Amino acid sequence: MTRVIEVYDTTLRDGTQAENFNLSVEDKVRITLALDQLGLDFVEGGWPGSNPMSVDYFRKIKQQRLNHTLIAAFGSTRHIKNNAQQDPNLQALIAAETPAITIFGKSWDIHVTDALHISLEENLEIIEDTLFFLRSHVDRLIYDAEHFFDGFKHNRDFALATLTRAVQGGADTLVLCDTNGGTLPHELPAIIGAVRHHLEAIKASVRLGIHAHNDSETAVANSLMAVEQGIDHVQGTMNGYGERCGNANLTSILPALIFKMKRECHAGKNIEALYKTSRLVNEMANLPHNRYQPYVGESAFAHKGGIHVSAVTRNPLTYEHIEPEKVGNNRRILISDQAGRANILHKAGQWGLHLKADDPLLSTIISDLKEKENQGYKYEAAEASFELLMREALGLQRKFFRVEGFRVMNNKYRIDKPPLTEATIRLYVGGHEVHTASMGDGPVNALDRALRKALTRFYPCLEEMELTDYKVRVLSGEHGTEAKVRVLVESTDGKCQWRTVGVSINIIEASWQALIDSVNYKLLKNEGLLG
Amino acid sequence: MTRVIEVYDTTLRDGTQAENFNLSVEDKVRITLALDQLGLDFVEGGWPGSNPMSVDYFRKIKQQRLNHTLIAAFGSTRHIKNNAQQDPNLQALIAAETPAITIFGKSWDIHVTDALHISLEENLEIIEDTLFFLRSHVDRLIYDAEHFFDGFKHNRDFALATLTRAVQGGADTLVLCDTNGGTLPHELPAIIGAVRHHLEAIKASVRLGIHAHNDSETAVANSLMAVEQGIDHVQGTMNGYGERCGNANLTSILPALIFKMKRECHAGKNIEALYKTSRLVNEMANLPHNRYQPYVGESAFAHKGGIHVSAVTRNPLTYEHIEPEKVGNNRRILISDQAGRANILHKAGQWGLHLKADDPLLSTIISDLKEKENQGYKYEAAEASFELLMREALGLQRKFFRVEGFRVMNNKYRIDKPPLTEATIRLYVGGHEVHTASMGDGPVNALDRALRKALTRFYPCLEEMELTDYKVRVLSGEHGTEAKVRVLVESTDGKCQWRTVGVSINIIEASWQALIDSVNYKLLKNEGLLG
Repeated sequence: MTRVIEVYDTTLRDGTQAENFNLSVEDKVRITLALDQLGLDFVEGGWPGSNPMSVDYFRKIKQQRLNHTLIAAFGSTRHIKNNAQQDPNLQALIAAETPAITIFGKSWDIHVTDALHISLEENLEIIEDTLFFLRSHVDRLIYDAEHFFDGFKHNRDFALATLTRAVQGGADTLVLCDTNGGTLPHELPAIIGAVRHHLEAIKASVRLGIHAHNDSETAVANSLMAVEQGIDHVQGTMNGYGERCGNANLTSILPALIFKMKRECHAGKNIEALYKTSRLVNEMANLPHNRYQPYVGESAFAHKGGIHVSAVTRNPLTYEHIEPEKVGNNRRILISDQAGRANILHKAGQWGLHLKADDPLLSTIISDLKEKENQGYKYEAAEASFELLMREALGLQRKFFRVEGFRVMNNKYRIDKPPLTEATIRLYVGGHEVHTASMGDGPVNALDRALRKALTRFYPCLEEMELTDYKVRVLSGEHGTEAKVRVLVESTDGKCQWRTVGVSINIIEASWQALIDSVNYKLLKNEGLLG
Repeated sequence: MTRVIEVYDTTLRDGTQAENFNLSVEDKVRITLALDQLGLDFVEGGWPGSNPMSVDYFRKIKQQRLNHTLIAAFGSTRHIKNNAQQDPNLQALIAAETPAITIFGKSWDIHVTDALHISLEENLEIIEDTLFFLRSHVDRLIYDAEHFFDGFKHNRDFALATLTRAVQGGADTLVLCDTNGGTLPHELPAIIGAVRHHLEAIKASVRLGIHAHNDSETAVANSLMAVEQGIDHVQGTMNGYGERCGNANLTSILPALIFKMKRECHAGKNIEALYKTSRLVNEMANLPHNRYQPYVGESAFAHKGGIHVSAVTRNPLTYEHIEPEKVGNNRRILISDQAGRANILHKAGQWGLHLKADDPLLSTIISDLKEKENQGYKYEAAEASFELLMREALGLQRKFFRVEGFRVMNNKYRIDKPPLTEATIRLYVGGHEVHTASMGDGPVNALDRALRKALTRFYPCLEEMELTDYKVRVLSGEHGTEAKVRVLVESTDGKCQWRTVGVSINIIEASWQALIDSVNYKLLKNEGLLG
């Protein structure tokens, strides 16, 4: 068994079962594009029969060109009362028009009798004919055997019979799910061995997969043990998001498969994008990064102390299980963090800015950046602000306008209505003083409107621009409403998108910084000044 | 091999290598007492030869009466230039007067030659005579074989020779350390098998232990696999704290050993204290609890959705790998848009509200909830707001105050400074009109301060309360600064925490709603009106 390992991501479906992990349709599309870049084989987009938002996702993702990733729609076996053709859940799956469909069915006898309230034989029938009906509609038909490990331990014959019927229905991949996450790694060889023996006996030619949950803190280990046992399809989520304690974490599984187990998988093509893809998912969900996360965490390759540090510099493998650059992370020496030089030069080149390794301005940029990062700015999800910072340091930033000040007033005069909000702005464009005012839905919206009112007369291109997302995060280590906040703003002009950042103890100020950066970026872009 | 498994905690020593995880001597003493209550066999208190703070710890812990736990002092083999009697590191270990000493030595040949700069034979000598010197001073003498797994893979004979010499020096326990955390679980059986074979060949009668790091996200799995392979001494930390990605997490290892692998260990005596001990460690370090942490996390036994919930209530083991109460955790039924009647009745019961399945008010609550959820409210992370909503519907909500209106003004008069922010509030408490004003770091902080200023005179208990987190999210499907936002506020009064929610197109209004709910919740709590 040396087949290429398939990697199947369910961040957008099973991942969003995690408490506090929420994604908009636009977030999901953006994450899909990043997972395609990473080279994952499948992205499970949602359950169209149960969640109307996922219908919108499937419509939007069809308009995108993907390099490699196949989109999968997820759903359950038909309801016992419907035949397959008329089952609304199955119709919704077909309407999603995805190249792959994943159907889950019950493997554990007590779930069949106690939750579905049907006989074991009826359950086998709905598995087989659900798959049989779908077979002609998709390229890839995947069967998720829910609660397989628990089911196998309680009623082995029944659990294996569900797999037989899934094969007879036409599934090309059978996925063994540890739905409750209770299985420990040493239990896997016997169970997977028995399944493989059974599949050989019925002469099934299918891929075998694993879908692990992390309730025992062994989801990554279980997935890797399963691969050792000949499984060649692995399901998981980015950063391990998922119901309860999460799903198997692909950010730990991928590098282990590629660098340690030397297994071939398409996701290996761009594994150095792992770090930034992991961060993107957190930024989209507006959740903090886990500092201690293996491979991609900030502390994952952090070294303290002197001897240790010189040893790690001489021969990294004596203190590091893999080289951090392989997954796009960096070694951090906790005293003097040299993070960035290569990165900054790389970015400058990408943006068409002339900056060489020996340019003294490089040190200025690094110290500006460090200063900003100490204040709480993060540029990973706000590259437009970083480009502006770099242009400022290089003396390339044009002053399109100069703000003198603003006021924002919120007046709640009726207790059952939101406050009325008004902003005024005073600024100069060239020699012209402009003083404008606007109402708004909220303080930031009022400021945004007043700013555009002031500038559009001079820069009509600002009419093309709109803000598409606005995220606020309280920075850790500080408390409640007195804490520093970081605001991320996403803007578009229909042709491209850019993201900017602001930080302050005052949310209005932080939002204002991100707004101003966004407008400046658009103006630079419009003048053809951006690389 | 059915010996009782020994559990050895190194939270206070290896754990404190984690970035951001800091403990005072008093914290360490308090954690030691809690670990003793939990029933752990060893607590490693520190490295007296390298850290003067740990000398203070050893002095203080001697004054405490422990039930079961043995305190261990940690140190390295003697320096090549000293003989054992004169080595200051070894003298510090003896001066700690602990019943156990743990010595680490090098197992990986390149570390001996490249880091210690001595010969392999010299390394074997310092291991043996360090242990020989210490043997008579302690009851338990433990040898940590640093980098054992990597060492074994590079130079098996040398790695095994270090163990031989540790046995000859008098170690009663040999601990195989995966110091860089790169080992995967499927590699363990062969390596541990070879070690056991070697120990039989040299007729060594010692315990064999495991010390795993989590760089591959498999530290828990590796520890459990090692136990399956006959190892009977397991080292780890509470909540998995440790250098880089952490050490093997005892909060996941203990319940697996006890409930799943049915191994005898003394820590099983009081395993239901696991949840509170895990939290205590975080509280001492002033770090947030990991919501998704297996067994002890807030989400570990959280259930969404209707059918699922009725099934889990009927037969918990169909959806839970263990019963949460066994480790002192609780099942949580999440309020969500699929929230059925069963969920609401369950919550009402939990909060001591009298609500029966046939009560017409139940339908009112369900429709209020659906209406709120359509507007964008989410109660999964804001149960306090949900409890207030339910009390309102049941006519149980007391009116502590009535707000007439407020104003918030942000005035940016200098471009290099955040705006000055002022809030005014007018409200009634009973017949008294109160009109207050406050400056603030930002608009929400100013409102928060003005509100407390107005109310604290009437309700002094509000002084105990503080806001600990503030989260803002733009709701999906809408754009930029015109979008609806959802604000989540977390509050505490030192005894417990609660979370509230607000939604509006205006961020000030959304924050205001969450603030008002938080204050009302505290006032209800203070009057003993909460269940």
